[in-house]
Amino acid sequence: METTTQANPCDDDHLGDIYSAECPCRDILDLVASKWSTLIIGVLQDHPHRFGQLKRAVPGITQKMLTQTLRRLEQDGLVHREVHTQMRPPQVEYSLTDLGHSVTKPLEAIRDWSERHLPDVRRARRRFDELQPA
Amino acid sequence: METTTQANPCDDDHLGDIYSAECPCRDILDLVASKWSTLIIGVLQDHPHRFGQLKRAVPGITQKMLTQTLRRLEQDGLVHREVHTQMRPPQVEYSLTDLGHSVTKPLEAIRDWSERHLPDVRRARRRFDELQPA
Repeated sequence: METTTQANPCDDDHLGDIYSAECPCRDILDLVASKWSTLIIGVLQDHPHRFGQLKRAVPGITQKMLTQTLRRLEQDGLVHREVHTQMRPPQVEYSLTDLGHSVTKPLEAIRDWSERHLPDVRRARRRFDELQPA
Repeated sequence: METTTQANPCDDDHLGDIYSAECPCRDILDLVASKWSTLIIGVLQDHPHRFGQLKRAVPGITQKMLTQTLRRLEQDGLVHREVHTQMRPPQVEYSLTDLGHSVTKPLEAIRDWSERHLPDVRRARRRFDELQPA
């Protein structure tokens, strides 16, 4: 087997290739393009939140899903987790990093789109059901 | 129990409320803000594709996931499925509807973001790992 010196397009400081199955930027897309990340980032873009505040601001999310998603967002550098140890009991606060703020606009556009096009989607679903063989 | 005449904000032609757990626009967000929809819509925005062409254009997707996602996109009116019966064998072609085209810009922005910020996310992951207790 010959070793190749050609750089992996997804290594080091190279940009990703979203249409390559092996590119790790697929994991980033998987995290960012998800219902819960979209909703959580939409709440955090206004101001930092504590865990309980976030859970109330995103109705329907489970404790487990919120914990998991926040951890992945922190790991990938979109969310900063600050522990205020001078408080009794210590308070944990979540905020968006600069990287997190840089993705808020397209996510907002997708939230808006979902709200605005509900009537169109409802009509499409009715048409689809009508066309199905009985 | 009293019946209420107040309109459900998610009924009929009313717009959705994405921060309400019960609003059906949450399902739309769940479909659109997903890795596979984002990739499939990105391929279809250029021109219609047959199933096999789509599968090759989105490496890593399974037959089952592609079938399921296309069906949900068709059901919600973002994708049109055309059967060309005059062809032998009949050919099935998938294309974006006007509704589907209306969401391409924010999805493109999220794909681009994921590719462009791979180096930042890699650095963030290394920092995160270093800060974890051994």
